[in-house]
Amino acid sequence: MRYVDFDKTAGYQRLAGLGARGTGFDFVSQLNAQRVEQCQVPMAAGLTYAWAAKGVDEPVLESLKALAEEQDLMGKYKAILDGEVMNTGEGRKVLHHLLRGQLGKPVIHQGKDLGAFYRQELDRFSQFADAVHAGTIRGSTGKVFTTAVQIGIGGSDLGPRALYLALENWAAAEGKQYLQGKFISNVDPDDASQIAASVSLEQTIFILVSKSGTTQETLANELFIKNKLKNAGLDPSKHLVAVTSETSPLAHNPAYLDSFYIDDFIGGRYSSSSGVGGVILSLAFGKGVFQAILAGAHEADTLAMNPDIHQNAALLDALIGIWERNFLGYPYTAILPYSQALARFPAHLQQLDMESNGKRVNRNGEPLSYATGPVVFGEPGTNGQHSFYQLLHQGTDVVPLQFVGFIESQRGDDVTVEGSLSQTKLKANLAAQIVAFAKGKADPQGNKEFCGGRPSSLIYGKRLTPEALGALLAHFENKVMFQGLVWNLNSFDQEGVQLGKILTKKVLAGSSGDSALDAYSALLGL
Amino acid sequence: MRYVDFDKTAGYQRLAGLGARGTGFDFVSQLNAQRVEQCQVPMAAGLTYAWAAKGVDEPVLESLKALAEEQDLMGKYKAILDGEVMNTGEGRKVLHHLLRGQLGKPVIHQGKDLGAFYRQELDRFSQFADAVHAGTIRGSTGKVFTTAVQIGIGGSDLGPRALYLALENWAAAEGKQYLQGKFISNVDPDDASQIAASVSLEQTIFILVSKSGTTQETLANELFIKNKLKNAGLDPSKHLVAVTSETSPLAHNPAYLDSFYIDDFIGGRYSSSSGVGGVILSLAFGKGVFQAILAGAHEADTLAMNPDIHQNAALLDALIGIWERNFLGYPYTAILPYSQALARFPAHLQQLDMESNGKRVNRNGEPLSYATGPVVFGEPGTNGQHSFYQLLHQGTDVVPLQFVGFIESQRGDDVTVEGSLSQTKLKANLAAQIVAFAKGKADPQGNKEFCGGRPSSLIYGKRLTPEALGALLAHFENKVMFQGLVWNLNSFDQEGVQLGKILTKKVLAGSSGDSALDAYSALLGL
Repeated sequence: MRYVDFDKTAGYQRLAGLGARGTGFDFVSQLNAQRVEQCQVPMAAGLTYAWAAKGVDEPVLESLKALAEEQDLMGKYKAILDGEVMNTGEGRKVLHHLLRGQLGKPVIHQGKDLGAFYRQELDRFSQFADAVHAGTIRGSTGKVFTTAVQIGIGGSDLGPRALYLALENWAAAEGKQYLQGKFISNVDPDDASQIAASVSLEQTIFILVSKSGTTQETLANELFIKNKLKNAGLDPSKHLVAVTSETSPLAHNPAYLDSFYIDDFIGGRYSSSSGVGGVILSLAFGKGVFQAILAGAHEADTLAMNPDIHQNAALLDALIGIWERNFLGYPYTAILPYSQALARFPAHLQQLDMESNGKRVNRNGEPLSYATGPVVFGEPGTNGQHSFYQLLHQGTDVVPLQFVGFIESQRGDDVTVEGSLSQTKLKANLAAQIVAFAKGKADPQGNKEFCGGRPSSLIYGKRLTPEALGALLAHFENKVMFQGLVWNLNSFDQEGVQLGKILTKKVLAGSSGDSALDAYSALLGL
Repeated sequence: MRYVDFDKTAGYQRLAGLGARGTGFDFVSQLNAQRVEQCQVPMAAGLTYAWAAKGVDEPVLESLKALAEEQDLMGKYKAILDGEVMNTGEGRKVLHHLLRGQLGKPVIHQGKDLGAFYRQELDRFSQFADAVHAGTIRGSTGKVFTTAVQIGIGGSDLGPRALYLALENWAAAEGKQYLQGKFISNVDPDDASQIAASVSLEQTIFILVSKSGTTQETLANELFIKNKLKNAGLDPSKHLVAVTSETSPLAHNPAYLDSFYIDDFIGGRYSSSSGVGGVILSLAFGKGVFQAILAGAHEADTLAMNPDIHQNAALLDALIGIWERNFLGYPYTAILPYSQALARFPAHLQQLDMESNGKRVNRNGEPLSYATGPVVFGEPGTNGQHSFYQLLHQGTDVVPLQFVGFIESQRGDDVTVEGSLSQTKLKANLAAQIVAFAKGKADPQGNKEFCGGRPSSLIYGKRLTPEALGALLAHFENKVMFQGLVWNLNSFDQEGVQLGKILTKKVLAGSSGDSALDAYSALLGL
């Protein structure tokens, strides 16, 4: 496999030469019904990627397609699927796709078939969830569990939490809410204290999630909760399960009701498809719901193998993002789901994208001289319309937009006001915003003028179901993967979190060795 | 008063000439204990603005100070306080400071003393909250109210919600939680449906908040809730109060238990200090808590009148932001509170900043050729450390950072693990991050190298109390105001939200007149 820095490719030079086309794209004349109908790529689980309002024309698309071939994105994706060491910095395989199904060769590591291992763990926590629902597994006073609280941070929190919230209303409508889910993440003691005070401890099962078993925040919150359980006269070992790696201090430990395993080949931000997301989602909604998420994701992973950019939404989305980041110079992307259920999905994508591709060196650690991952932020619509959209429409800079929307609501509980349902209003706003951003509006009064030229894409589907959610999750994972491959990054390590950890330990040990750090510590009463 | 575009000032030219100093600021040698101790500005309610880790030296500060004088920021702030028409686009006064106390001349409008009017409304909803707490005002079945649900969007949601969440743990610890607060904002029907299903309707009071009384989302959600109340056999008029303007269709309407008034001089994103925030906060935590927020904000407003940049944190924060945005070219700012209670405070600041200063024309509607408001985003620490901090530390672009932290937690419920309390770990992480971002760390392995040079400031205090929260709120309002005045913007209108509304109405009426918009509508099943 040939790994080349992006700016050393012929594609880079060709696209740089086309750069002026992007800002000059004439949405007013180009964005019509025909373009909207043609510029669509089918995704998994019935979703569609609609990119008509992106400022790309045929020459740009041709160059992006050639770039994908030149950087051998399909070959490198296949190498990931086949279990090659693609997390170069840490010398690890990258196997989150395998959690959803096998698309490459069997991955054998130290004599162990990892696909079989992942399926076995899936089976184990599926059965565990069944047993909790059946009342076979109960708390230490013999009462059934009604609440599951995840204790984890970063990838052990954001993805699982986003997925949980995304399906809470769907589950209520479908009669699939078995346990209520809650989350403790922050080392701020107010977080754990508030959640502990909000649940009935004797009917709560806590899921401790830390791959390494050494995460500072998670271990502090574990002891916090264990103390609460003990003070309530409960046996913590009957109220805690662990999700960790087999080599961690938490593994095979009688302090837990049960333990479920992942390994070093599942990165934190890619771990929602493992027990990290699977235990709480199976407990909350039943094993079938979690497995439906995996099925949607697996279908998306399969579609991502197609070399045709017009049949591969993740690939096309990635390439358009490269165009916007490197040749139009846009340093951010907004994620705007028109779905209250996806309220925290942008926070998950923020981690996924910024932690994967927020890198300034290539996969070999050599400095790069081009821009990589953008800042990602977002809130659900229509809320955002009444907040930061002012800047998106009329600010001095252009922010590319990623809309998501569904034809039906999750709960189906609606009201007609002034002749339309709320769901209809939601969708009308979404359609209107896409066109308003793209085309703008002239006005003799400057503060009422809209320049337009603000590009967006739309992912839409019938309803936000578990399958659709899995497809959405995998779409963005694969998009970020393809972008990292174009940029020649290692998207799978996160060394940028280490320095803060080291300095924190020094502060806690009382000897930072840095006078400024000592002074800041003093300000904070340390 | 003299209003000049920023790039026409002598200060702009002088700062442009200094631009290279910023990126060249040597944090490793400059950021020491002495600088940390010296670079602090006292704020209201015992908070402090610590800016040692900002890349500004004496020549830059001198130029920023001269700029503040040249743009007459103090004179223009005074004009706002005195009730001059500073919302030029809409021809309105800007009076949110007056909600907190009088700092300028009495503001008389059409014979009415607006300061007296605001105090009267504050008294009215304070007494209303007292009556609810005393059980004098009850629901239609005679049961006392236990839950207050705000129905509002944008400024009627983000600020009040952020403040509510910020004080929930404090109130629990202080025995001040009278009613539980909840919020419905999105027109997505799943939002209202989920909240309605989560409360006991007969013990819930709903606060309908819309200044104009015509907000599409809020009116839809009002009817949604009224139907739920009727279907439960309850009388909606005994469960709803309104916060609106006296000229709105909701005013003086027997459909509500009571109505509280604001006027056109209180912008949505600046309305948390009015009944928009005050009714729900007084109901939830008692009138004294809301009035303590106002007291903290008023003290901040008073300090913001000081022309000395070393005594005026909002002014200095604003000017450093101008330096970073216009001369160092940073297009974003991250808000990073090390306080779980402030989890949604960044979302409020995102609206405050991006809706106020996301403008490409000056206060007279003339196009500008310099950058204005940045993209604002953020999540609480330490959560963010395990998410997007990778990009902040090692991405290809620099993101200026605004940290917030407190010496004590709100609930005081903590655990010692490995020799330190969780609150201690939280603070150690905060101090460590500031220094890690500023100084970085050399490493022979590229992916383990930290360039440093990532500037930050820190606002810190003893504990997040109502007074401190009010001070924090007003600090950022005043910072944004000063930046808008430097940029010669009208920070108080939001014409950028209008085009989407117009096109939405056309879609709902069935005749958009735009083939692309019709095509997008069809995709979404409209």
